[in-house]
Amino acid sequence: MELRRWPRKNDPESIRARQDALAPRLDGGGEVFSHDLAPFAQATEALTGVALVPVAVVGPLDVELGDYELEEPEGGLAERGRAQEGVYVPLANTEGGLSISLYRGARAVGDSGGFRTYVLKDRITRASAFLFTDVAAATSFARWIETQAAHMRAWLEGDPIPGLSRHAVLREIETHVVGPVCHVMYAFTTGDACGMNMITRNSYALNQGYVLERAPDRPRRAMLEGNMGGDKKISHRYFERGGHGKTVIAECTLTEDAVRRVLKTTIDDLLELAFVGTHGAVASGMQSVAFTPATAIAALFTATGQDIGMVGTSSMAHGTAHRVEKGLHVAMRLASLEVATVGGGTTLPYARSWLRLMDCAGPGKVYRLAQIVAAATLALEISASAAMATAGSENFYRAHFERGGLR
Amino acid sequence: MELRRWPRKNDPESIRARQDALAPRLDGGGEVFSHDLAPFAQATEALTGVALVPVAVVGPLDVELGDYELEEPEGGLAERGRAQEGVYVPLANTEGGLSISLYRGARAVGDSGGFRTYVLKDRITRASAFLFTDVAAATSFARWIETQAAHMRAWLEGDPIPGLSRHAVLREIETHVVGPVCHVMYAFTTGDACGMNMITRNSYALNQGYVLERAPDRPRRAMLEGNMGGDKKISHRYFERGGHGKTVIAECTLTEDAVRRVLKTTIDDLLELAFVGTHGAVASGMQSVAFTPATAIAALFTATGQDIGMVGTSSMAHGTAHRVEKGLHVAMRLASLEVATVGGGTTLPYARSWLRLMDCAGPGKVYRLAQIVAAATLALEISASAAMATAGSENFYRAHFERGGLR
Amino acid sequence: MELRRWPRKNDPESIRARQDALAPRLDGGGEVFSHDLAPFAQATEALTGVALVPVAVVGPLDVELGDYELEEPEGGLAERGRAQEGVYVPLANTEGGLSISLYRGARAVGDSGGFRTYVLKDRITRASAFLFTDVAAATSFARWIETQAAHMRAWLEGDPIPGLSRHAVLREIETHVVGPVCHVMYAFTTGDACGMNMITRNSYALNQGYVLERAPDRPRRAMLEGNMGGDKKISHRYFERGGHGKTVIAECTLTEDAVRRVLKTTIDDLLELAFVGTHGAVASGMQSVAFTPATAIAALFTATGQDIGMVGTSSMAHGTAHRVEKGLHVAMRLASLEVATVGGGTTLPYARSWLRLMDCAGPGKVYRLAQIVAAATLALEISASAAMATAGSENFYRAHFERGGLR
Amino acid sequence: MELRRWPRKNDPESIRARQDALAPRLDGGGEVFSHDLAPFAQATEALTGVALVPVAVVGPLDVELGDYELEEPEGGLAERGRAQEGVYVPLANTEGGLSISLYRGARAVGDSGGFRTYVLKDRITRASAFLFTDVAAATSFARWIETQAAHMRAWLEGDPIPGLSRHAVLREIETHVVGPVCHVMYAFTTGDACGMNMITRNSYALNQGYVLERAPDRPRRAMLEGNMGGDKKISHRYFERGGHGKTVIAECTLTEDAVRRVLKTTIDDLLELAFVGTHGAVASGMQSVAFTPATAIAALFTATGQDIGMVGTSSMAHGTAHRVEKGLHVAMRLASLEVATVGGGTTLPYARSWLRLMDCAGPGKVYRLAQIVAAATLALEISASAAMATAGSENFYRAHFERGGLR
Repeated sequence: MELRRWPRKNDPESIRARQDALAPRLDGGGEVFSHDLAPFAQATEALTGVALVPVAVVGPLDVELGDYELEEPEGGLAERGRAQEGVYVPLANTEGGLSISLYRGARAVGDSGGFRTYVLKDRITRASAFLFTDVAAATSFARWIETQAAHMRAWLEGDPIPGLSRHAVLREIETHVVGPVCHVMYAFTTGDACGMNMITRNSYALNQGYVLERAPDRPRRAMLEGNMGGDKKISHRYFERGGHGKTVIAECTLTEDAVRRVLKTTIDDLLELAFVGTHGAVASGMQSVAFTPATAIAALFTATGQDIGMVGTSSMAHGTAHRVEKGLHVAMRLASLEVATVGGGTTLPYARSWLRLMDCAGPGKVYRLAQIVAAATLALEISASAAMATAGSENFYRAHFERGGLR
Repeated sequence: MELRRWPRKNDPESIRARQDALAPRLDGGGEVFSHDLAPFAQATEALTGVALVPVAVVGPLDVELGDYELEEPEGGLAERGRAQEGVYVPLANTEGGLSISLYRGARAVGDSGGFRTYVLKDRITRASAFLFTDVAAATSFARWIETQAAHMRAWLEGDPIPGLSRHAVLREIETHVVGPVCHVMYAFTTGDACGMNMITRNSYALNQGYVLERAPDRPRRAMLEGNMGGDKKISHRYFERGGHGKTVIAECTLTEDAVRRVLKTTIDDLLELAFVGTHGAVASGMQSVAFTPATAIAALFTATGQDIGMVGTSSMAHGTAHRVEKGLHVAMRLASLEVATVGGGTTLPYARSWLRLMDCAGPGKVYRLAQIVAAATLALEISASAAMATAGSENFYRAHFERGGLR
Repeated sequence: MELRRWPRKNDPESIRARQDALAPRLDGGGEVFSHDLAPFAQATEALTGVALVPVAVVGPLDVELGDYELEEPEGGLAERGRAQEGVYVPLANTEGGLSISLYRGARAVGDSGGFRTYVLKDRITRASAFLFTDVAAATSFARWIETQAAHMRAWLEGDPIPGLSRHAVLREIETHVVGPVCHVMYAFTTGDACGMNMITRNSYALNQGYVLERAPDRPRRAMLEGNMGGDKKISHRYFERGGHGKTVIAECTLTEDAVRRVLKTTIDDLLELAFVGTHGAVASGMQSVAFTPATAIAALFTATGQDIGMVGTSSMAHGTAHRVEKGLHVAMRLASLEVATVGGGTTLPYARSWLRLMDCAGPGKVYRLAQIVAAATLALEISASAAMATAGSENFYRAHFERGGLR
Repeated sequence: MELRRWPRKNDPESIRARQDALAPRLDGGGEVFSHDLAPFAQATEALTGVALVPVAVVGPLDVELGDYELEEPEGGLAERGRAQEGVYVPLANTEGGLSISLYRGARAVGDSGGFRTYVLKDRITRASAFLFTDVAAATSFARWIETQAAHMRAWLEGDPIPGLSRHAVLREIETHVVGPVCHVMYAFTTGDACGMNMITRNSYALNQGYVLERAPDRPRRAMLEGNMGGDKKISHRYFERGGHGKTVIAECTLTEDAVRRVLKTTIDDLLELAFVGTHGAVASGMQSVAFTPATAIAALFTATGQDIGMVGTSSMAHGTAHRVEKGLHVAMRLASLEVATVGGGTTLPYARSWLRLMDCAGPGKVYRLAQIVAAATLALEISASAAMATAGSENFYRAHFERGGLR
């Protein structure tokens, strides 16, 4: 077949045509075509079959969650209360040892009083870029647009163009001039959605309907995204400051007893590992300090319909371990955790059910989900670190030897 | 329930116990428990249900693939030939517009002569760390161990310890001394597996059975991984040099005609976008230059049973666009693409079938898979860039407006 | 002699004692002791002799300088006017070819209409750190202190403690919580001084006299600097955002004619170099894009009594080259240029004279100096790039071959 | 005057003409013209006057230095012996408190048994770049040139072209292909010179006389430097791996007693500072972990005629602090310390004398100098850290308050 003749629609005939064309190549693997695709017809063009990933569930994790609300109009987060809960986490994965290790970490934390989690920031950024002939115009434009955030927010609220999202609220504008280009970071909040789609539409509207109409210095060219926006590529900007999702921290103070009994190591050994691992991270140019945050985040994202392309950016992590009077304080900061409880993949079967398991489906749940992900990530980090901290990292080896699973 | 009582085994009773305990929380979402879990019993502890992700298929992509073999004992890659093919790519995703965009990029490339792909390097690294009392001992140890790579390779081949992998062949050792610590980067090849499990076992054996037995300077402590190994965290080391998977480049020279007709833009406009986007990447501290490589990689990884936790590291990308006589040369370098065609999730139903679709299942196929992933990633990059390069990025906006899919 | 007996004072006897003790080691090199040290007695303890560096002067550079003023109380920069001037730049250096190359770059720019320079931001930051027992306290503290900037500014103005600087005006506070630590970035303006000394004293006063007295969450420990302050170490934070000195951009649009006649190359060749060099910078993990900004900055800093330890941070540069209708637009952004026209080494003979040469000595001159440094840096960058852009970089080679100077 | 008429030569008339033209601008500051410039006539074109910087001397520092030799032909470093010495260090600076602080750090180390220093690597890199039409050619070229290092070394030894340096010995070649470009890192040793001039000439010869003559794939364009060479811009490549100067580590194990008595703090307090400062460095995107290495390096570089433009790159530092049985182990790794004892500014009066003070002038001394710089840098780091580690960093504040010097 020629590529140009490949059917892209999702009517039953097109789906069937694709399946028929491909079946001979599968060598019997017809299971991928054996599911009802109707619920997924809006999810992707050229829909043809399914992937199925096994899901482990571990719980209940003992987590003290904050209850957060956005303050208007600045969009800061106010903590309305805190409550301790037991939460079950669904882990879509095929990595033997992952769920048992996360379980062990959660037990050590549970025996030490549980996780506590905090949401520090909520923003999602589209960084448009405006190209001028020289720096003079770009800086003059920057000075102008920096004064426009409130007007732009109001303009968007007036619904000036069809197709805009009311959920995507512009909060701040930051500019960055380099050469003849003025990058404009539009920072939004987007309710319980991840919001890339919303902010793409609203930013386009701002650029075309507001900026190009009113800017005293007319740019030669406007680009919706000039690559300072942090979407799906790790960057220091978003590691340090957040701004592409939720900035969340999970913490726990592990007791000596839990470290010894559950984690089979000592605080001193964990601190030596932290010393070695932190400096190893720096030496190799990691833009994070952690052992394995992406593992837990990937498992939770896959189960709950998050954007898998955001596993890397959502895993920008800064872990710390510090001895305090009561034991070992450990914390994990996730700078830009891109989670949603509405929209996109979260609306589909399976994903929606796994969100429900955590009471995270639908509106009003996104800060809850962010905190649970952070707690689960810290649970796995603690356990993997403990295994690594044993003499010769024997327990880490054993986990791979005995539970490596699918070799 | 208490966490400590949560059943972790995968016998039918334990699975059922977990499902029964959780069912009330799902609010009817029983579809997650409705599949036969037997094929997945080895995949994860605490197996409880499944996640299901819709898969689009696009093709055939026109790709000239290299045929590569490892040279012994150095482990360099020899190109044995090149052949042009049509390849169908399975994209597990819920992002409206992704597959149609990748399709469009592939068409522009097809009309320009097709993709060409190259594998430059194949290594997977475990970076153990040895802690001493001072720098003197650490540097002396470093000088010793740097001379041991060939002996270690031979020692591993002698199968000195049960449970080692014969597929994980040690190729080089590099050291890095910082403070009283000597980090030792063991660089392996692992056949067609991703190989983290293998190299964990073999590195443990090296540390315990070889190093600690023979090192003139005995370390105070050996750690299997000291965080210079590049596993699941982006780092400059592995972005620049590869060493955690395959280093692959895909390229194409787009013709003026294909750019205009298929991509609806111009070479000049694409070059202006490249100018803005490259400097935007630098300004925001991205350790890559690209727009959206993780999107394609995530979709292919999810469909084919790769480790989803490696989406971020596998997406470390360096894209370029350069005008040449015949049009616009575009290329995408993926420094550390962590793919497998045997082992782990690739052995499971669904994943195996999607691998078969690309003739990438089983031994001898991993370089093929790496190249196809690179080509697909470049296809999407081209199309997304073209949409962004239109006036005001109108076409990028339209894609989100019209195909946003699941809002 | 024993270290503990080494005289540290600067009275004539102590100076002489040091000189006498060291003279035998100099093998006749008494010139280092042959100068009157009295003018330098306040500059450093254990004053013993001098270093002498030859200074080239090149000019007049044709520069259009902005006239800037700080706006109160926000501390933004208002441009009051612009004027074109001819400026002579003193270059303390021993690098054959440097001054002649900068001269050539300046000529090409002069023939193209001259440099234009802009100051975008002025801040200097001390990042204190407050250590708590847990994240809960650190985040609660962060929320409190973020509201205190205006009160703190007023408190400092009340001169609550002897020894504070009135020139160091607190402008904003930003916090960063990682683990149980709250980093607090105090961003000041410091008039025409570099200001590290001032802001150290004022930050100490804030920490001890304000924060520890009033914070609802009392920290376990306050540290004046927790290493987020950007002092003398390159960091992405200060490369992107500025905040440790002046953010300045110099630009010029080179004409085809000047490129050909003066620079002996072509715009196409310069653009190919920019393509290669920009991607080479990314590939090697440079936190900048430029060829040789530190060369010009070092020469100007050494001549004018700036802090030589800040050459690296002041050289964080982002250079661009972009074809426009009238030729090749080139620009150099210096994110954190740490210059002073009062205080520190600028008050000493020689330094003060070289500042006078540029009409940059004393109060009210610091933005002028920053702009001249940026223009000179761009001049050298243009010329070095042009030499590199010739076929095989022959002209770059020739400059090193013929003018290498002191081999 | 017009720029084009500015005299650039260094004959007495030209010098005088420049001085006469500029004198009216100096407002009496004729001291800059009052020195005999004859000794500096080869140092820079457009020589016009001098800068003079006061120099403190502190010592004797108690350092155990390694005696190193290059092994042929690989260019590895062999340690031939170690010897303890007392060394005086000249610090050209105008920063009140610097020399007294370095003195204090040296005392604490002296009381703890002295510094020990190690040179791990010696290389200086020129990274030429070869531009092709596509990746196919660039990768094919890379495979070829990687096999040519030994032949190239021999070719250079045959002195095929006038003006080459025999001191610059090619050791290895590494390639990096990105897009249609093959970067070629030529790694040299250059004896006791810094060597940028030498390797520029030799690399040009290699490119023009060897590569372009013999490469099976002829590049469209050769550039002497494509910006992967690490010259004067900080980069992760050279921070991690060295390759632009000497990789040196200095260490000491501070006793409890010295920490308390001399440094006025405790090991626990220093460790808390290290915890905060290391994570602060990561959070702000520093490509180093240290407080103030550039301060000591700048002072030594200015005194001894090193290239001031290399202060930033030479200061890429990785400091560690770790509790061991006997006290607190501290170490400072300088990855790419660019020092020379012959050539360039080191040949001039003043610089040469200050080098003699340390017995570091002339051939055979460069590893000695590198080690002394590292020890001095660690001395200052220890003392500054100790001041910062006191309660509220009071002692750091006091140093700035009492010794700020020139306000």
